[in-house]
Amino acid sequence: MIRIGIYGYGNLGRGVESAIMQNSDMELVAVFTRRDPSTVRLINSDVPVYRAEDALDMTDKIDVMILCGGSATDLPVQTPYLAKYFNVIDSFDTHAKIPEHFENVDKSAKENGNVGIISVGWDPGMFSLNRLLAGSILVDGADYTFWGRGVSQGHSDAIRRIEGVKNAKQYTVPVEKALEAVRNGENPTLTTREKHTRECFVVPCEGADLARIENEIKTMPNYFADYDTTVNFISEDEFNKNHAGIPHGGVVIRTGKTGPSLENKHVIEYKITLDSNPEFTASVIVAYARAAYKLSCEGACGCKTVFDIAPAYLSQKSGEELRKNLL
Amino acid sequence: MIRIGIYGYGNLGRGVESAIMQNSDMELVAVFTRRDPSTVRLINSDVPVYRAEDALDMTDKIDVMILCGGSATDLPVQTPYLAKYFNVIDSFDTHAKIPEHFENVDKSAKENGNVGIISVGWDPGMFSLNRLLAGSILVDGADYTFWGRGVSQGHSDAIRRIEGVKNAKQYTVPVEKALEAVRNGENPTLTTREKHTRECFVVPCEGADLARIENEIKTMPNYFADYDTTVNFISEDEFNKNHAGIPHGGVVIRTGKTGPSLENKHVIEYKITLDSNPEFTASVIVAYARAAYKLSCEGACGCKTVFDIAPAYLSQKSGEELRKNLL
Repeated sequence: MIRIGIYGYGNLGRGVESAIMQNSDMELVAVFTRRDPSTVRLINSDVPVYRAEDALDMTDKIDVMILCGGSATDLPVQTPYLAKYFNVIDSFDTHAKIPEHFENVDKSAKENGNVGIISVGWDPGMFSLNRLLAGSILVDGADYTFWGRGVSQGHSDAIRRIEGVKNAKQYTVPVEKALEAVRNGENPTLTTREKHTRECFVVPCEGADLARIENEIKTMPNYFADYDTTVNFISEDEFNKNHAGIPHGGVVIRTGKTGPSLENKHVIEYKITLDSNPEFTASVIVAYARAAYKLSCEGACGCKTVFDIAPAYLSQKSGEELRKNLL
Repeated sequence: MIRIGIYGYGNLGRGVESAIMQNSDMELVAVFTRRDPSTVRLINSDVPVYRAEDALDMTDKIDVMILCGGSATDLPVQTPYLAKYFNVIDSFDTHAKIPEHFENVDKSAKENGNVGIISVGWDPGMFSLNRLLAGSILVDGADYTFWGRGVSQGHSDAIRRIEGVKNAKQYTVPVEKALEAVRNGENPTLTTREKHTRECFVVPCEGADLARIENEIKTMPNYFADYDTTVNFISEDEFNKNHAGIPHGGVVIRTGKTGPSLENKHVIEYKITLDSNPEFTASVIVAYARAAYKLSCEGACGCKTVFDIAPAYLSQKSGEELRKNLL
C-alpha cells in the first residue's frame, strides 16, 4: 500500500481523499491543516487530522505527501519545504513562475533524496502533456487551448468582492465559431474576445443597484473588460439549485501539416468535460502520486513534471498487463 | 544530428522520409529495400538506396533504424534481428502478438545494448497511451475506441480480391448515435454492428455481375458480415478523383465517475482526424525515434513501448524550454 498524506483540506483536499478511496493500492494516513484540527470533518475517512506543523513527526509513516494549498502563497513555500522530508506532489498553476518553483523544489528534493512532482492537474498537467505530444508529432502546426464551459473560481471571487453582491458564479465559455474554425484547420489568429465569452450569475443583496453591479463587472480590467460578458441576476434559490457545482473542462487542439509539400492536414484534439473540477484534478494528482512513489522506490530524486514521467508509472497494472490489454 | 535509416519503402517508408525533413535534428542516411534498389525512387531525398542485406555494413552510420515493413510476416522477423545491430523502432500492430514480439525484441536488444521501441503509431500508439492515461485518472469508468471515418487497407484489399472488382476502397465509419451515447456518459454496451458501419466504393470490371459482387462483400465473414455495409459502384474517374487519399482517424473516449458516492461524471476524449494515415503514423514514429536515440545515449537498452517513455524524450526542446513554454 502506498501511504498518502494530504496537506491542506479544501475542495482539492476533499477530492484527493475521495480519489484515494478509488485506488486500491493506496491508503490515506493523515490529513494536515492550518485550521484547528478539531473543526475539520473528513468526508469518509477515519484517519487523524493533525496541525500542519506536526507533519514532520510523520516522515516514516507517509510515502507521498499531496499538497492541496493555493498557488499564490501556499505552494511556493510549502512544496520546497516539505520536499526536504517527503516525496511531494502539488498542482502549482501560476504558469509564469513554474521555472522558479521547479528550481526550488528540485534543489530541496535532490538534497534530501526525495521526489517532487509539480504542476499536476489538467492545465497545467494533462493539457500540457497533450501540447507536448501533439507538438512533437505535428512539427509544422499550431496549438489552441480553449477552457470551459466551466466555473472560474478567480472570476467568481472577483465578482463577489463587488459591493452589493451576495453570491456569484462565473462560467468561461469557448466561442463555438472559433472552435469550429480551428477544427477545420483554418489556423485562425484569435483575439481574447474571439476565443471565450464570460457568463455571470449573480445573487444581489436586497436593494442593490443592479445597473452599477453589471457595469462594474463588465468593465473590470483583466478579468472581464477584454471579453463579451453577460450578467444574469438570479435568486439565491436558483443559485443553489442550478449553480452549486464546480464543473469545468476544455480542449487542446493541434492542427498541422505533413507530406512532401505539406499538403496533408491533421487535427489532434484532447477534450475533457468535468462535473467536478477539483475531483478530476485530484484524480490526476493521485495517479501521479503513484508515479512519485514508484520513482522514489527506484532511487530517483529531484523535481519532475508530467513531461518527465513515463506513463506506465501512473498505472496500478504491470508492464505485462498494460502491453497485453491496453497497447 | 540523429542519423536515421529507413528499412522498407512503401507508404509508411515514404511518410517517414517526409517526416524526417520536418525535423531539423534528424537526417536520413539511407533507405533499405528488398526490391532492386535501382527501381526505388525516393520522394525528395538524395540518399542512397541499398539492398536490405547491406544494412549490416552501416551499423556505425545509423543511430536509429526505422522499420517500415508489415506486421504479418516482416516485423516479427526483422525487428528482433535488426535490434542486434541497431536501435530500432517499428509499428507492429497485431495486438494479440504484441507480448511475444516484445519478448523477442527485448531479448535481442538487451543482449546487444540497443534500444527497441515497438508498436508505435496511433493504434497501437497514441490511442494506447490515451487509454493508459485516462484509465489511470478515471479509475471507475469505461473505455471506448471508435475508428474512422477512414480507409481500412485490409478491407479494401479484401474487396479487390473479389472476381470482377477492378479497384475498391473501404471506409470505416463510426456510428454517430453510439458516439453520442458514449459522450453523454450513458455507458452503453455496444455490439460490433452498433459501433461502426462500412462504406465501400467499388470500380467494377466491364460487364461484371454487380449484384454478385455486392452480395459477396456484404456476406464476407469477419470483414463485413457483422456490419451494416453499403456498396457504391463508381467509375474509375470518380475513384481517382474522390478516393485517391488514405484519410483516417478515430477517437478514444473514457467516461468515469468520482466523488464520495461516485456522483460526478467526467469524459476524456482523444480524437484525431487525418488526411494521410501513413504520414501521421510516420510522424509519431519519427518523434519516438528521437526518444530511442536519447535513451540509447543515456545507456538504456531493451524493448520499450509508448508506455515506458517519458514524453519529454519525444521533443527537440530542452526541459527548461518545455517547462517555460508548454507546461
